[in-house]
Order: sequence, then C-alpha cells, then structure tokens
Amino acid sequence: MEIRTPTLLIDKEKCLRNIDKMQAKAANSNAGLRPHFKTHVSAEIGNWYREKGVEKCTVSSVSMAKYFAENNWSDITIAFPYNPLEAEEISKIGDQTNLNILIESKESLEHATTNLTKNVGFFIKVDVGTHRTGVDPRDESLIQFLIANATEKLQFRGFLAHAGHSYGCRDLDSIQWIFDGAKKTLTHLHEKFGGIISYGDTPSCSLMEDFSFCDELRPGNFLFYDWMQHNIGSCNVEEIAVCMACPVVAIHPERNEVVIYGGGVHLSKDMIVEKDLLGKDLRCFGKMVALEKGGWNTKILGNVVRLSQEHGIIKLPDEEITHVKVGDIIGVIPVHSCLTVDLQGHYLSTTGESIEKMTKN
Amino acid sequence: MEIRTPTLLIDKEKCLRNIDKMQAKAANSNAGLRPHFKTHVSAEIGNWYREKGVEKCTVSSVSMAKYFAENNWSDITIAFPYNPLEAEEISKIGDQTNLNILIESKESLEHATTNLTKNVGFFIKVDVGTHRTGVDPRDESLIQFLIANATEKLQFRGFLAHAGHSYGCRDLDSIQWIFDGAKKTLTHLHEKFGGIISYGDTPSCSLMEDFSFCDELRPGNFLFYDWMQHNIGSCNVEEIAVCMACPVVAIHPERNEVVIYGGGVHLSKDMIVEKDLLGKDLRCFGKMVALEKGGWNTKILGNVVRLSQEHGIIKLPDEEITHVKVGDIIGVIPVHSCLTVDLQGHYLSTTGESIEKMTKN
Repeated sequence: MEIRTPTLLIDKEKCLRNIDKMQAKAANSNAGLRPHFKTHVSAEIGNWYREKGVEKCTVSSVSMAKYFAENNWSDITIAFPYNPLEAEEISKIGDQTNLNILIESKESLEHATTNLTKNVGFFIKVDVGTHRTGVDPRDESLIQFLIANATEKLQFRGFLAHAGHSYGCRDLDSIQWIFDGAKKTLTHLHEKFGGIISYGDTPSCSLMEDFSFCDELRPGNFLFYDWMQHNIGSCNVEEIAVCMACPVVAIHPERNEVVIYGGGVHLSKDMIVEKDLLGKDLRCFGKMVALEKGGWNTKILGNVVRLSQEHGIIKLPDEEITHVKVGDIIGVIPVHSCLTVDLQGHYLSTTGESIEKMTKN
Repeated sequence: MEIRTPTLLIDKEKCLRNIDKMQAKAANSNAGLRPHFKTHVSAEIGNWYREKGVEKCTVSSVSMAKYFAENNWSDITIAFPYNPLEAEEISKIGDQTNLNILIESKESLEHATTNLTKNVGFFIKVDVGTHRTGVDPRDESLIQFLIANATEKLQFRGFLAHAGHSYGCRDLDSIQWIFDGAKKTLTHLHEKFGGIISYGDTPSCSLMEDFSFCDELRPGNFLFYDWMQHNIGSCNVEEIAVCMACPVVAIHPERNEVVIYGGGVHLSKDMIVEKDLLGKDLRCFGKMVALEKGGWNTKILGNVVRLSQEHGIIKLPDEEITHVKVGDIIGVIPVHSCLTVDLQGHYLSTTGESIEKMTKN
C-alpha cells in the first residue's frame, strides 16, 4: 500500500511484545488482564490479544461495547459513568455478552435498576485522587447504599479505579505515591465491603510491579504507548508501536521549519510542554523520526511545534533539515496515541496491510 | 431524532444569516466569495451556500476536493500546499471541475508541471506574517520564477494569503494592523506581477469592512463561528450556529463540577486560555449553555475546564449546579468549530433532521 496522505503505522511486533510484558506482569501478581480497547478500537487488533489468551476487555462507550460484542468479546466493562439516555442501547448488547457498567450515584443505580432490560454487573467507580469522576471513598454510606441495592438485574462486582492523575507525573516517586494511596483505599474498601478490585492506568501498570491487591488490570495505552508515556517514563522510545507517516509539503530552512501534511485532524491537538535547551517552555505535538523499511528509526530528529487543521510545523536543526525535501514522507511519534487513533479511518501495519477499525456514524 | 450521545446541533437559520452578512460584505467591496468548506465538510450544507448564489469553494485537502467535485462544485481551490504524492488523485478530480492548487516552491512547481495530467490553476501562497507556509513576499525572484514557468497545464491565477495570525488577536487594533500589512503586501504583488488576490481568515473578514483590494474572500469558520471567534471579537454569542448536546452522567456539587459525556473525541482538545475573576489563567474547552426547544439559550452557565477522551468536566456556580441532574442534556459551545466538526459522523439540525457529511476512510 502506497502512502500519499497522513497514515498511522502500527508495528505489530512491538504491540505483541508490549502485550506479553503486561500479561506477564499481571500473571506475576495473580491478576487478570482486561485491557482497555479504546486505544485501538479495532476487532483485528483485539484478536492479537485474544491469541495471547486475553478474554475480557474494557471500553469507554456503549457503541464500542456493541462493536466488540459483535466481534465475539463476551466479557466487557464499559469504563464510563452509566449514561441513563443509553439504557436501551446497553440492554440491546448481545445476550452472550457479560456486561459491566460503572455506577457512582444513587440516581444512576435507580435509573439502571428500573430501565435496563438486561442483567449486568456494576462496579462502583472510586475516585482515588484524579477528581474526575467516582465516589469519594470516605463516603461509606453511599457505598453501602449502592451495594445494599444490588439486585439480580444489577449485580455488584466490586470497585474500579483509574489513577488518571499519574499522567501528570514525571518521576517514579510520584507514581509510587499515587499507587500506594490507591492501593490503601481500594484494599480497605475490599476488606470492608467485598467485591473485586479493578485497577489500571498505563503509567502505574508500566512502572509498578506488585499488583497482588488487584483482581484485574485495565491499562490500554501500553499497547501502543506514545511520547507522553515516554516522558512519564512508562516506556522507552523503542516500545512505542505507532508512528504517523506524513508527506512533506514545504520547507523553510530560514526558520528551521518543515511543513508536513499532518495536522490536528490527524494527530489531535493534545500536546505536552517540554523544556528547550535554555529551560524555556516548548510545546510538543509529536516527535519527528525517519521512516525506514519495515518501520521507523527511533532517533528523534525534530519537534512538532505547531498544528493547524491539516498542517504540522516541525522545528529541526540545520544538519537534519538539509536531508529533507518536498515529497518525502517522514514519521511523527504521536503525543497521545488514543486520541490519534480516534481520528483515523484505518491503520497501516508496518508490513503493509490495512488494519480496519470501528467507524463513527 | 432523540439525543442519547454527544451530538452536534446546527442552527440553519443562524448559518444562513452568517452567509448573508458575509456575502453582502464581499459584494460591497466588489469581491467574490469562495468560502472555506472545511468548516462543515457537508454537501448538504454546501447547498445552503449554493442557494444563495455561491458557486466557488475552498477546501483543505484533495479528498475534500474530490467529495465536493462529486457533489457538483465546479470551481474549487485546494488551500493547502501542493502534495506531490497526490498528483494522481488531483489529476483524477472531475473534468467538469476547475481546480486551483497552491504553489510555494520551485520543486512543487516542477513536480506539478511534470506529473499532473489535468490542467489546473495555481495560486502563489504568500506568507503575510503567519509564518506557517508561503513564499516570503520579499523573495521576488522566486515569485518571478514561478510566474515565468506557468504553462497551460499549470496556469498562474494570482496570490493567495491567509492571515492566520489574526487568531491570536483579542482587539480590533491588532487585527487592523495585520490587515493593513497584508493589504499592502498583496496590493504590491498584484501591481507588480498581475494575477488576482484571494484573501480571508474569519477574524479579518468579520471585523474589517473594505475588501476592495481583493478579488475574492475565503473565510470558512464564520458559517458556524465558535467561542474562540467570540473571544477574538469576530461574532457575538447569538451568531454562533453550532452547539454540542451532551448527556450529564455525574454531578459533584462539592467541587462545583458536572461530568458530561462529551470529551476530546467529540469536541477536540483545542482550547483557549481565559482569565478568571482573580486574573488567573483559566483553560476553556467550551462553554455550557442550556438547550431549549429549537436550539439553545445563549446565556453562558459554566466553563468546560477539562476534557479526557470521553469525559468533559464543567465548572459551574452553586446557583446553576442545583438545576442539573444526571440524565439531563446540556449544550456546549465549542472552542473551535472546524475541529469539532471533523470529529462528527453526522450533525443534527435544530429542527430535528440529520445532516450528512463527508466520512473518513
């Protein structure tokens, strides 16, 4: 397949190694692996997990749950607060599929109990410090109420947490601190109220070792990783399994800039702030690498400093810019692979095959 | 049509008024209107323009050019630097379609001359200060070379500029300053080398009055506007014609937060920095409004302070949060409508009809 427009390359070998590593880590702690499929949203890539023996998955929307249920995933957790408006869609998801939803309020519990026509499990989403969603773990009367009102329709499964604030960390100590806090909170809830513990964000799951307090791990991003995870310390650059191939359309040596066809609609506008050599803030929307046969070289050549809708602007040093010409294709390591993935119509494997994914409707 | 998941609402009446206003402004200056269709990417919405007598359009990719050519647009400018890798796709675009491309280097001109099999027009893209792409207007030898090497295959049309740096402005004086500079540059080039002048970014086209130096205006965003344009001063809140309908899935009154189903994959991660009442930086990913019959109320109720993949976090005051409950649908005025639009599979008109758009493949 010839590349003519921005195309997300996926290195399957790297993905398989990332799966192996995470699976071994979960097994060492006697925990199951229920990877988050929002990172790839592809039935074909789901099969890579299945071939490794993974049988459960996590998704972030009802439409993803439907897609993976139709692709024979029979144990799915929708890791997003129960949306009352989708009660009917949730109820329609295959009879052969064990489905879990998240509950964090009396209102949601009551709505689900009344309106779902399918039996589902529920996790109580616990806020372990991210302060995005979830029950305050100190609010034990609410937790007690939710468990006491479980029914056959809505079965209590346990406690689920996502330590998303680990994404703000840039050293091991702070991730350790978040992890220890979450462990203490969840262990206490489990001892007091029973149920299983479902845990997992890619930084913690990549950097911590002992997950014996968990029943299952739910990281997703580790399959591909990205530049943000690299900066957090979750992975090294060789483990990043995705790279956007982008045509070069203009060169401005006078300001050390290359213009690529590859913008916010291809990479997403997610960005991180790094420091330049003088300690000044430097916005990073991706890192430039060279493509090579069967993939990409992992040496970082330049920084994507700016994105508009279709354009990307890469700053790179004199010694690199002289090698680039209009009509070349260069690689960009994305900042946040999950959001980049969402923008693609399909992917391309580094061995040249098109990989299909779920489409938006 | 019932709303159950994040859905972009489009108010057609507001769009038509925005078109009328821009068309009148162009007519007053004896300039044509070649609106940028990347803002909507919909054949149906294209027809709203056509019914007003607009016959030319601008797009930002070859795939968009193909889509609109197939939908009977016969005069299209691809306002993105010529991508040599798409020479074949460009050549395939309908024989009935007059196509213009952008050229900004000898290399691109030579490649297009050799490789295109269809006759096209070209504009020289001029950098009027954005420093994204374009020829340095002082580089008259390059400009002379490009014009001298025009052929029947590749016909010189004129000079095209996009003053994208106007997006950084927050007052009329700075937009006026950018506009005056661009006018001076383009007028000089036109007088010296001939060709037409194609100009247009939404802030300048909304706020300036006299475009008599231009042959055509190319704004796009003005059709929908958004919160960024509101902050620039390009529009008032009543003129914003798009609003994302988002289900409420959790409420945290203890921190004045509402969690909506509506995240980076629905709104895009584009954001602007505002000031709060204490002068502190406040990130804004959208503004909350109330939905009402036939559209939305334009009173701003809260600020979208954070987005993850599927979640949005809205901060709103005590007196507003008490009115919101799980299962409600609230409205979010997007920060950047073009990027929000790109993320949709379809739109919903405020009168209840589904509006189709181009899909990614």
